[in-house]
Amino acid sequence: MKIIAVIGLGLIGGSILKGLKNKGYNLVGTSRNPETVKKALEQGLISGTSINEADVIFICTPINITIDTIKEVAKTAKPDAIITDVASIKGFIMDFVNENSLPINFIGGHPMAGTEHKGLDASFATLFNEAKWVLTPSKQTCSNDMQTLEQIINELGAKVIIADPYEHDKAVALISHMPLFLSQTLLGFVQNHTNSELALELAASGFRSMTRLAHTNSELAADILSGNKANVLETLEEFIKYLKNKGADYGAV
Amino acid sequence: MKIIAVIGLGLIGGSILKGLKNKGYNLVGTSRNPETVKKALEQGLISGTSINEADVIFICTPINITIDTIKEVAKTAKPDAIITDVASIKGFIMDFVNENSLPINFIGGHPMAGTEHKGLDASFATLFNEAKWVLTPSKQTCSNDMQTLEQIINELGAKVIIADPYEHDKAVALISHMPLFLSQTLLGFVQNHTNSELALELAASGFRSMTRLAHTNSELAADILSGNKANVLETLEEFIKYLKNKGADYGAV
Repeated sequence: MKIIAVIGLGLIGGSILKGLKNKGYNLVGTSRNPETVKKALEQGLISGTSINEADVIFICTPINITIDTIKEVAKTAKPDAIITDVASIKGFIMDFVNENSLPINFIGGHPMAGTEHKGLDASFATLFNEAKWVLTPSKQTCSNDMQTLEQIINELGAKVIIADPYEHDKAVALISHMPLFLSQTLLGFVQNHTNSELALELAASGFRSMTRLAHTNSELAADILSGNKANVLETLEEFIKYLKNKGADYGAV
Repeated sequence: MKIIAVIGLGLIGGSILKGLKNKGYNLVGTSRNPETVKKALEQGLISGTSINEADVIFICTPINITIDTIKEVAKTAKPDAIITDVASIKGFIMDFVNENSLPINFIGGHPMAGTEHKGLDASFATLFNEAKWVLTPSKQTCSNDMQTLEQIINELGAKVIIADPYEHDKAVALISHMPLFLSQTLLGFVQNHTNSELALELAASGFRSMTRLAHTNSELAADILSGNKANVLETLEEFIKYLKNKGADYGAV
């Protein structure tokens, strides 16, 4: 029976475990938080915490410790284990992997799914249903390993998109990371506005849609905005220019 | 039995009828579209189309024909009928009502609820559940009429907020109309961007949240953005300034 390990049992890691339950794998996992490990064991999501025998390892930690976790995993994983991650930024991680000849088979990953909630309790088996899941192969990645990983991702209900890590980072700046900044900024703007009292009393589903991303897990949001800063800033500058032009058109009509 | 009339059987008008069904009223209604009237009769949402005997009349037409509809209704409604509307902009409508001494009891209204869908088929009984419903009394409005209308609104599950029409228009510019413009602009920006192909392939729930308002019924969106233009433009200019400052802070850190 193939062993799949998940490191980091939050929204993403927990949802991977729940989605792979009863699919014929031996699932193991670890977390920084011993309480979370205990809960995952009690809920039957994992059978143990040792990743040394795992055939496939999903690193689902916060982005800012992904590289440290890769280094750790490289020391103990089986030589032929497939190691992947779920970080929303891929360039700096793939650079690290390609520039350091670690004795591991690493394939970068980014499932395009999430909610504004965090933690194991917020995870659910169908999070990745119908989602896209980006994979960014490293220099050493072989097609067999890609196929193995893709099959697992398909079992989670997601579809694999293979992309260049830097193209990925630009694309997600456009549809995810700059909109996150925009959503946070809109919320702050309205909360600090002189008309905010009546406005916030009247705020309904439209405002909730526009500010949902502002309620993203704050550790994740900070990691994204610092990790993909150059792309987000460039996209933001372009957007401000576009918005000013559209505003001028609107005012002029 | 009190007669309640609804003019305009779209998302809002249809949801009022569905929400008041089996609550002890005789419900009547009309629409510009004879097919919609036929459907509402067939579905038992209305018992007839004459509004002449109605005690309370909800004008749920598009905003740009609300004033014409008020004029029409003023000719045929019972002298003591309570007439209200649901337009998202209140200043120009209340100005019209206050400046023209029409022989009617008019109370401006704006339910803070909606979806991106339109039409009778998109309407549902619980649309106003837990929603706020702004009322803007006119100069002649008496407290008895306010109470009658508030009771009906409460039966729809909504809570009445009494506001000055111009304060209302500024508040909704902030939390609804400028965000609508922002959502439309973000969608256009991404669709026209050089990186749009991969980006749109990867777009997930975050981008859908940010662009949901851009899919608002286009007639309604155009009416809102032209009807509340001065407030939306002012709010947009303030927001662009705020966004530039936040972008500069982010880039500088």
